Amino acid sequence: MSGLIGLDWGTSSLRAYWLDGAGEIRETRTRAWGIRHLPDGGFDAALTDITAGWPRLPRLACGMVGSRQGWLEVPYMDVPADTAQLGSAVRSLRTKDGLDVHIVPGLRNPQGPDVMRGEETQLLGALALRPALIPDSSWILPGTHSKWARVRDGAVADFCTLMTGELFALLRQHSILCAGSGDAAVDHDAFARGVIAARDSGSAGAFSRLFSARALMLDGALAPDAVPEYLSGLLIGEELRSSLATNRFRHDAPLQLIGDAVLCARYRLAAFHFDLDLAEPLVDAAAHGLWQIACDIGLVSANSSTTSKESSSC
Amino acid sequence: MSGLIGLDWGTSSLRAYWLDGAGEIRETRTRAWGIRHLPDGGFDAALTDITAGWPRLPRLACGMVGSRQGWLEVPYMDVPADTAQLGSAVRSLRTKDGLDVHIVPGLRNPQGPDVMRGEETQLLGALALRPALIPDSSWILPGTHSKWARVRDGAVADFCTLMTGELFALLRQHSILCAGSGDAAVDHDAFARGVIAARDSGSAGAFSRLFSARALMLDGALAPDAVPEYLSGLLIGEELRSSLATNRFRHDAPLQLIGDAVLCARYRLAAFHFDLDLAEPLVDAAAHGLWQIACDIGLVSANSSTTSKESSSC
Repeated sequence: MSGLIGLDWGTSSLRAYWLDGAGEIRETRTRAWGIRHLPDGGFDAALTDITAGWPRLPRLACGMVGSRQGWLEVPYMDVPADTAQLGSAVRSLRTKDGLDVHIVPGLRNPQGPDVMRGEETQLLGALALRPALIPDSSWILPGTHSKWARVRDGAVADFCTLMTGELFALLRQHSILCAGSGDAAVDHDAFARGVIAARDSGSAGAFSRLFSARALMLDGALAPDAVPEYLSGLLIGEELRSSLATNRFRHDAPLQLIGDAVLCARYRLAAFHFDLDLAEPLVDAAAHGLWQIACDIGLVSANSSTTSKESSSC
Repeated sequence: MSGLIGLDWGTSSLRAYWLDGAGEIRETRTRAWGIRHLPDGGFDAALTDITAGWPRLPRLACGMVGSRQGWLEVPYMDVPADTAQLGSAVRSLRTKDGLDVHIVPGLRNPQGPDVMRGEETQLLGALALRPALIPDSSWILPGTHSKWARVRDGAVADFCTLMTGELFALLRQHSILCAGSGDAAVDHDAFARGVIAARDSGSAGAFSRLFSARALMLDGALAPDAVPEYLSGLLIGEELRSSLATNRFRHDAPLQLIGDAVLCARYRLAAFHFDLDLAEPLVDAAAHGLWQIACDIGLVSANSSTTSKESSSC
């Protein structure tokens, strides 16, 4: 049997994909075993469990599993980097079951400086799914540490990290701004007000408007329970405002989205207030990126890819 | 005996001043009894303890003690507001010892919106100490919630809150950025690098550079223990960058500082990288502001102010 086991192994979660010989996803499993939350037995035990019952296939991983705190450190490569370049820097380790795990490097951007691990593989997978975007495209990967990326000629050429998700979590859990807020409820109006406040903050930026959440609440103009949604809008709005202020990312064509559907829907709502076009998000981009790299380095044989889905073939 | 007991009563601390009949400070006491950390017996017990042994004098308070969570809510006044206007809105309550405590209102800025409690009194006290600044001056009051304020014709005309101190505390204690950092040590070089990164972040703003703390650390270009100082510089630098971007605050004359000496010294270091002139900080401004308001509303008699220090007289 041919195929690949792809592992998207981050800080807080582990996702495993079983891909067939044509690069199609046959099964997906998710565990809360990020590299900082491993089960007893560590990396080996996590891998054995999440692949239980699957065939013995080549295994390729991306994400924080390749960091200094991961299973095997794979040094960052500098941008620009394409599939072949990332493939050439893959490193391998022999696991307790006698097979190898191969790990994709992360990327480093000297401008910033900045780093990513895992998103480079998602971007390459997304390009395989949408080859028209290979020459020049701009991407948003929302999350704890959101990434904005520019692709040119199939290579990740530039990127920037915005800590939107982590800042929101810190403010939600610990700030005086949310001291009187109960459980978050979806509130499109409060979210939109936050987005607009960020958009209209000009070059001062939305962090100069953060305290308005408290002043509006004291004014009776924002319900205490609506403060988290207002802050979510303010922070996502600031991510859009600040990234668009740089001209590093094109927005004369739709910006591409990769990630969780609920979070991506928030970004699309926010983008509406910026007259910005965000494409429908892509899912399972990491699996497709791992497949591309596996083909490139010969982990899976090219003649096995008798696929019906050209975009995902080797 | 004439004189005043002035109380600067905030969220996390209480400071009491005994002023003589000429408005000079005779004694100052500080307790950790902010309105959220009161001793057994609450406000009455805190007041009795901190004024123990002092003469029975009129008592005037400012700060969060006048908030909804305070001893008596004194509604915010809208800017612009001067000493007479703040004095006219003072409210009073009878305490268990049979005397009154009078409480100064906070200020609300419809632009923002924004609010302050306590800083308005510090500003009026500072103007009494530096009357040349009464016509038009700009002020920074660094802290958990830093305030930038514009004074015109002796009235607080405009202000803005930057949550610099609270954001730094959140990042220091909870963010992944500081996960590998030990106890903070003063590191002028790391601080300056943060300030410069913020200054050079342009209209994108320094929050788009936050993750550089991690990338620099991974690069070996920033020691893990230096990350907090880098972040302190980045956040104070962003406060300067974003406030100067608005043109709401004049900087063709030195900006005035009120507050804690150590924190103000950080702001002066940061200002150096912006070619910005920050004056020596004023201390005990709240005491002088409370004295001004007490004179205005007749809590202390004008003929008692046979002061040698004209600037602080009624």
